[in-house]
Amino acid sequence: MPDSAVIALDAMGGDFGPEVVIPAAAKVLSGKGALRIILVGDEERLRACADKHRIPLDDRLTIQHASEVVEMHDEPALAMRKKKDSSMRVAINQVHDGVADAVVSAGNTGALMATAKFVLKTLPGIDRPAICTTIPSKDSHTQMLDLGANVDCTAEHLFQFAVMGSVLTEAIDNLPNPRVGLLNIGSEAMKGNAQVKAADEYLADAPLNYIGFVEGDDIYSDKVDVVVCDGFVGNISLKTAEGVARLISYYMKQEFKQGLYNRLAGLIALPVLNAFRKRIDPNAYNGASLLGLKGIVVKSHGGADVNAYANAIEIAVLEVNKSVPQQIQEHIQPLLERQSA
Amino acid sequence: MPDSAVIALDAMGGDFGPEVVIPAAAKVLSGKGALRIILVGDEERLRACADKHRIPLDDRLTIQHASEVVEMHDEPALAMRKKKDSSMRVAINQVHDGVADAVVSAGNTGALMATAKFVLKTLPGIDRPAICTTIPSKDSHTQMLDLGANVDCTAEHLFQFAVMGSVLTEAIDNLPNPRVGLLNIGSEAMKGNAQVKAADEYLADAPLNYIGFVEGDDIYSDKVDVVVCDGFVGNISLKTAEGVARLISYYMKQEFKQGLYNRLAGLIALPVLNAFRKRIDPNAYNGASLLGLKGIVVKSHGGADVNAYANAIEIAVLEVNKSVPQQIQEHIQPLLERQSA
Repeated sequence: MPDSAVIALDAMGGDFGPEVVIPAAAKVLSGKGALRIILVGDEERLRACADKHRIPLDDRLTIQHASEVVEMHDEPALAMRKKKDSSMRVAINQVHDGVADAVVSAGNTGALMATAKFVLKTLPGIDRPAICTTIPSKDSHTQMLDLGANVDCTAEHLFQFAVMGSVLTEAIDNLPNPRVGLLNIGSEAMKGNAQVKAADEYLADAPLNYIGFVEGDDIYSDKVDVVVCDGFVGNISLKTAEGVARLISYYMKQEFKQGLYNRLAGLIALPVLNAFRKRIDPNAYNGASLLGLKGIVVKSHGGADVNAYANAIEIAVLEVNKSVPQQIQEHIQPLLERQSA
Repeated sequence: MPDSAVIALDAMGGDFGPEVVIPAAAKVLSGKGALRIILVGDEERLRACADKHRIPLDDRLTIQHASEVVEMHDEPALAMRKKKDSSMRVAINQVHDGVADAVVSAGNTGALMATAKFVLKTLPGIDRPAICTTIPSKDSHTQMLDLGANVDCTAEHLFQFAVMGSVLTEAIDNLPNPRVGLLNIGSEAMKGNAQVKAADEYLADAPLNYIGFVEGDDIYSDKVDVVVCDGFVGNISLKTAEGVARLISYYMKQEFKQGLYNRLAGLIALPVLNAFRKRIDPNAYNGASLLGLKGIVVKSHGGADVNAYANAIEIAVLEVNKSVPQQIQEHIQPLLERQSA
């Protein structure tokens, strides 16, 4: 049955909590008859918020009470140990207990990763989960991982990320045999650090569509479908891109403000500039996957709006319907057997 | 005497060789009466090129013959060992022999770094030279290092980069006590890899205006003047920025091409868009400094045009007049004495 899934939402997470989560849930439910959503959080607040938005609670949209909230500034390990009745933890428990198929949260990324790893555990053959997100490219998009979960990575970790990224891309982008590239500072084999060079050798032998090293600018081209890197480099690359996009918007606004002609030109170009701005809006690609866990976990931007949060729910539904964790396990298993042979 | 300097140019390096280098030399010479330039390369070709551009060779613009050329695809170590009469090597020799005060090259970066390090040697207290370049920010710009010379860096290396970047920024941007930040994946002290955390401790004690960790998007803000990172991360961040800028230009062109209204709007907005494009043109900031050597070496983009190459020469002149290598040595010396005390 298409789109049949139960999704648990950490309804208190993110900058706007239920004010964004509940309307986003209603939006996704209206298009998917076989979908059920569990809102996890303070029952009273959730009911009041649903009432306010005239969104009826029924058997497809239910509430699971949780008394605590993980704050953005909470230290991940501490949040995990101390806030056992947080909306984040209880939402993840729904997946662990088989009540839900996936969880979506816009809360503290570190706490989400730590708690999900602790409650759900990693798949056999996966040492560390990774965060994977969609990046716009010229005429398509790229999946990139890891984006901050793992600061120091060995070649084995990078190899596992490559397998997970390939499986995810095949599943959610419906792209068979996606091109996998390893992020490096040059395309020649002699360049790069020791981990990257060793991972390159592993990947050359693996049953993946591995295309070799790619550079930072290739992420935004259409040369590669899955870009693999450690979390330190991935996070800095992602933040760099955000900084550049903001800088360019700022420059553009400045140019269109100087003098009467430029202001008029800006007014005339406004619809085009708005369409353009929409295209570089990070909300358009909201929903990062925590891969390598025994369960599906999707992270939304903290500042996501209703449409963006709905997008993150859609990604979770896709991963449920494509059984992403099972597929990762199936792909990793023969590689493990080969290694130990 | 202001702007008094002798600059050796690797006139054969870069995509356009003397066709760009000679007009750029003439441009800079016309504005600086006390400057002398030595063009290094194939004498016959250089004479022909100068004739073609009607640029007179005199005692301020001379030729030093070199029979070989380092190609972009040459392996750095091999180029250094085998091409002893390359325009790059001979130009660096001019600095080593005290004939020139600085060298500028648009050639193969790896070969330039390897040869400069071999011929000129590093300053006492500096383990490895670093590449530093100017990055545009909102209303100013940022200096960032290392950008690819050093793949794996210890905390000590990062510390040395911070000192060198601070000295360079004070000298060429005329900015006393520049704010130095360490590139990391979060501003909290608990985040980051071991090298970054240890470098943070060193820097907290140093007589620099160290402001702590900065993130990828801060490079393009006005929060920091000098951004320090290892060459792997720096190169990927820089290439990411190039990729994003190209992607955004591509999207914008696409938007302004769809339908009659958009085309007309694009025509009207053209002067504004061109002014904007000029602002994000990497040529505007051409000229990366190889720091930590016993001599001044400036790297130009391979594809630099005349104005961009002239900019790289201007940076070399500034570094000569501010005695950047001597200043780095003076700043590093007391830190070394403190360490060994």
